[in-house]
Amino acid sequence: MSKNAISNSVIRRLPRYYRFLGELEKKGCVRISSRELSEKMGLTASQIRQDLNCFGGFGQQGYGYNVKELRGVIGNILGVKMNTPTILLGAGNLGKAIATIDFCKRGFNLIGIFDVNPELTGKTIGNLEIRNTTELESFCEEYKPIAAVLCIPKASAPETAERLISYGIRAFWNFSHYDLSITHNNVIVENVHLGDSLLTLSYGLNSLEYDSEE
Amino acid sequence: MSKNAISNSVIRRLPRYYRFLGELEKKGCVRISSRELSEKMGLTASQIRQDLNCFGGFGQQGYGYNVKELRGVIGNILGVKMNTPTILLGAGNLGKAIATIDFCKRGFNLIGIFDVNPELTGKTIGNLEIRNTTELESFCEEYKPIAAVLCIPKASAPETAERLISYGIRAFWNFSHYDLSITHNNVIVENVHLGDSLLTLSYGLNSLEYDSEE
Repeated sequence: MSKNAISNSVIRRLPRYYRFLGELEKKGCVRISSRELSEKMGLTASQIRQDLNCFGGFGQQGYGYNVKELRGVIGNILGVKMNTPTILLGAGNLGKAIATIDFCKRGFNLIGIFDVNPELTGKTIGNLEIRNTTELESFCEEYKPIAAVLCIPKASAPETAERLISYGIRAFWNFSHYDLSITHNNVIVENVHLGDSLLTLSYGLNSLEYDSEE
Repeated sequence: MSKNAISNSVIRRLPRYYRFLGELEKKGCVRISSRELSEKMGLTASQIRQDLNCFGGFGQQGYGYNVKELRGVIGNILGVKMNTPTILLGAGNLGKAIATIDFCKRGFNLIGIFDVNPELTGKTIGNLEIRNTTELESFCEEYKPIAAVLCIPKASAPETAERLISYGIRAFWNFSHYDLSITHNNVIVENVHLGDSLLTLSYGLNSLEYDSEE
């Protein structure tokens, strides 16, 4: 099976499947039908069957999916056990909040936090000490991080990203409000635009107002 | 034109169009062709033409789009001028970071911040004082907020959301790691799952590894 065959919209749904199946497993649920799963997730049963067929034939007619097995397979596709060494740049409020996310459960291992502000140097977030950005290059040489979380201002994002790529970074989780478009081979970016998400809510509310006026 | 005719995937792209057109406008760009816009945004020109056709006939063959006009129309669809009164619950690191987002530019007006921790009461974020959650009901009676940002723990999210709905809240921007499924009419939710975004990056990195091993 080639992974390239999985469409982007299925990929976007995988983390949600993984999360829901995890909650079911915690509750001691062993098997679930596509109908039950669809009700919990707000998708149609046929969409779930189609999605899960992309990774091979799970579930049997009238028998349902084995929750633990299916979660394991999706977890492997998502790479949750990769434990990729990861650094975070920018220890402001957002950086501090992001640093407390459980990276390990999601395939990453946060090993360093950096900030340009020397007053933050030596302070800790969780069990990690904040380092000054001047240490970045030597840190990367020694610990070889592969992923970087950017919680830095928009203006410094493009230059910082280029520098990090030259230090060996190949994956960016980018909160910097700047669409990183990486032209390098084998480098990937997940841009998070919280403002776009807020605009989507605004659209929804605007549509509600519109509908109720009709 | 019925707004219901716009597909969900087009809606998801609207904030990005709005953002890109804003940057073009700032740079003094008056007109842009679908080809140029597609290069900047990493979409195909035909997709852009299709998307923008959903809101009426913009752009003329060989003439391009008027940047300011198109941005204005998209802004109206997104409701950027609604100025919806909004409260934020949970003044931890994430809440503090979210509170500094420019709500006004995106259709919302942040008028109150609340936290259960009495030690935070009276401290300020931006120009807003943090209030204790005990004041929530009387505040809502007086100022009638319509939207709420939830930066609260997963466990308290469902109960808090129900309470807020009874106080008149109709739109939730939900960071609580709990999929709010609102069964009330005329209430909308934008769930933000940062963990899902991290898993998507993990998938991408895992696929890179996979491809390079082939």
